[in-house]
Amino acid sequence: MKTRAAIAVAPNAPLEIHEVDLDGPKAGEVLVEVMATGVCHTDAYTLEGKDSEGIFPSILGHEGAGIVRDVGPGVTSVKVGDHVIPLYTPECRQCKSCLSQKTNLCTAIRGTQGKGLMPDGTSRFRLGNDTIYHYMGCSTFSNFTVMPEIAVAKVREDAPFDKICYIGCGVTTGVGAVIWTAGVEPGSNVVVFGLGGIGLNVIQGAKLVGADKIIGVDINPAKRAMAEAFGMTHFINPREVGNDKVVQAILDATDGGADYSFDCTGNTDVMRQALECCHRGWGESVIIGVAEAGREISTRPFQLVTGRVWKGSAFGGARGRTDVPKIVDWYMDGKISIDPLITHMLKLDDINSAFDLMHKGESIRSVVVY
Amino acid sequence: MKTRAAIAVAPNAPLEIHEVDLDGPKAGEVLVEVMATGVCHTDAYTLEGKDSEGIFPSILGHEGAGIVRDVGPGVTSVKVGDHVIPLYTPECRQCKSCLSQKTNLCTAIRGTQGKGLMPDGTSRFRLGNDTIYHYMGCSTFSNFTVMPEIAVAKVREDAPFDKICYIGCGVTTGVGAVIWTAGVEPGSNVVVFGLGGIGLNVIQGAKLVGADKIIGVDINPAKRAMAEAFGMTHFINPREVGNDKVVQAILDATDGGADYSFDCTGNTDVMRQALECCHRGWGESVIIGVAEAGREISTRPFQLVTGRVWKGSAFGGARGRTDVPKIVDWYMDGKISIDPLITHMLKLDDINSAFDLMHKGESIRSVVVY
Repeated sequence: MKTRAAIAVAPNAPLEIHEVDLDGPKAGEVLVEVMATGVCHTDAYTLEGKDSEGIFPSILGHEGAGIVRDVGPGVTSVKVGDHVIPLYTPECRQCKSCLSQKTNLCTAIRGTQGKGLMPDGTSRFRLGNDTIYHYMGCSTFSNFTVMPEIAVAKVREDAPFDKICYIGCGVTTGVGAVIWTAGVEPGSNVVVFGLGGIGLNVIQGAKLVGADKIIGVDINPAKRAMAEAFGMTHFINPREVGNDKVVQAILDATDGGADYSFDCTGNTDVMRQALECCHRGWGESVIIGVAEAGREISTRPFQLVTGRVWKGSAFGGARGRTDVPKIVDWYMDGKISIDPLITHMLKLDDINSAFDLMHKGESIRSVVVY
Repeated sequence: MKTRAAIAVAPNAPLEIHEVDLDGPKAGEVLVEVMATGVCHTDAYTLEGKDSEGIFPSILGHEGAGIVRDVGPGVTSVKVGDHVIPLYTPECRQCKSCLSQKTNLCTAIRGTQGKGLMPDGTSRFRLGNDTIYHYMGCSTFSNFTVMPEIAVAKVREDAPFDKICYIGCGVTTGVGAVIWTAGVEPGSNVVVFGLGGIGLNVIQGAKLVGADKIIGVDINPAKRAMAEAFGMTHFINPREVGNDKVVQAILDATDGGADYSFDCTGNTDVMRQALECCHRGWGESVIIGVAEAGREISTRPFQLVTGRVWKGSAFGGARGRTDVPKIVDWYMDGKISIDPLITHMLKLDDINSAFDLMHKGESIRSVVVY
């Protein structure tokens, strides 16, 4: 079949809209009509050539929502007509990782996904004679895409695609880090470094689970109002208190330190602050942000020996098929908010402007609606 | 009263044996007749002036066992005649740390203990007119010492002092890190870096809880036999496989990495290996070793984002009054071994030779018997 798609032809080149050829689903795969997709910093990261494993030409996009339009042989967990969210972190429930019950990082199709291919080692996309590669196993910048059955989460049908697509990455990454990676308990003091989209979702996750103090840290005071609307109770601006006094300001505000802290900046110096502002004895710091290639985190081992814990979170620790439908329910029940975070709605033809808005800091999330 | 004690008069000077004056126990304190004490690397660390908070003149020693000979007003949890192990990490059961139920690092008397004083801000030891300071709240290099009630663990009376004194530090630090800090489950693959006394105790802790593979890493092949006797199943010598191939050797031996790793070296480069040899998704690395002042640990944040956890352990995560008596029981029941680790027995007059044996690598643990 044919589908319209935005192709990343080369690093730093604008995406090009084309009609591409899409092969139907093979065994264990499904054809998804993507109804909406967010444009995420990770797409930009790859488009800018910063991802050493980025592949061109490819169809980017990994934060979508859509409808199953066809299924390949052997597919049992979804059927034509089901509403789904594509999962860049699949959930096979069979691999060593899934069976460990300790991680959401399913490894069933990791090898081929990293090469831009379906599990059988081939791509479903072509433009003329040229292979176009998949991206993060999703390629939601295409009106239709093919996904492995284990990489779609079936969700309720009354949820609006142009909002729940954000659950495909950003919402789950933030809210999930609080709930599944950190396991924040009611009454905890939480500190969030970086009040972009992920940080706001960490804040509303912390509010959802009943945190006490929710302290936001950002150098941009314009982020304050939205963060407060999402549940932030205290704001610290490093440019006001002095960057070298941020940790002490947090220790003072929390009677000894954060129970949980989250880095949503990707800055390795901030990651260190996020660890060192944790409470002696039990404070846990979760790295969510993606650091620049080659940058490393450091601290004195004494910070850990005296009881702080350093960990990280990918896709919020969420098991895609199990947990993503829960977050959709929470959104529909009003327990979390998404609408104010969707600042721009675009058509596929205008997708390059979403990257412009992101770079100018003018959007929280832009969503392409097909 | 008078008691014989070894005084650390100045950094790097031999300990001097003196009759010192000891005031009796004040409110909430107990007088302990120390029957035996181990000589630990931490004593040497302080004696060598490496501890920036080290105080002179002081009576070192923190790994003892003895008998309560007197109690001050208000003492309710122990009585004269009770056998006890002094605790450099007390357990008040009242402070924010104890009540958190997340840490063993009781903070009730932290301020005064760090200054070499009892909780009332004074020392019980004098030599002539000179104040002699306490050390780690224990000062077991004295035949008699005074301790806060919250800093002694009551233990069974049939346990031999000259063995269970080692539970006052080394045994609990190693065995406890496995059980209370890491929570190693049966069937886990465990890697132990450094096969000195702490490493051997980590190994027997891992064996006790039913670990599968227990891999020891040490540059000294002479450590192998004892480690195997304690439960090590595989040995890796970085000088044989190449230091830069240690992590890969562990990944290969464990089908992807350690479930739990423990650094017992204090070397920050080894701490990094210990983290990076952990299994993607869930492997946890525990720092036990004390690093040189100023040294820092580093890694790429990707190591944490993909599911590894970096933490540390002090006194094995053990709550002193609650958990130390359990370890004494385990020793008496034959579930853990201590006797082969006590390589030298000395009298107080010969205590300086214990440091010599340690520096030459000729002892695992030297014990002074009064």
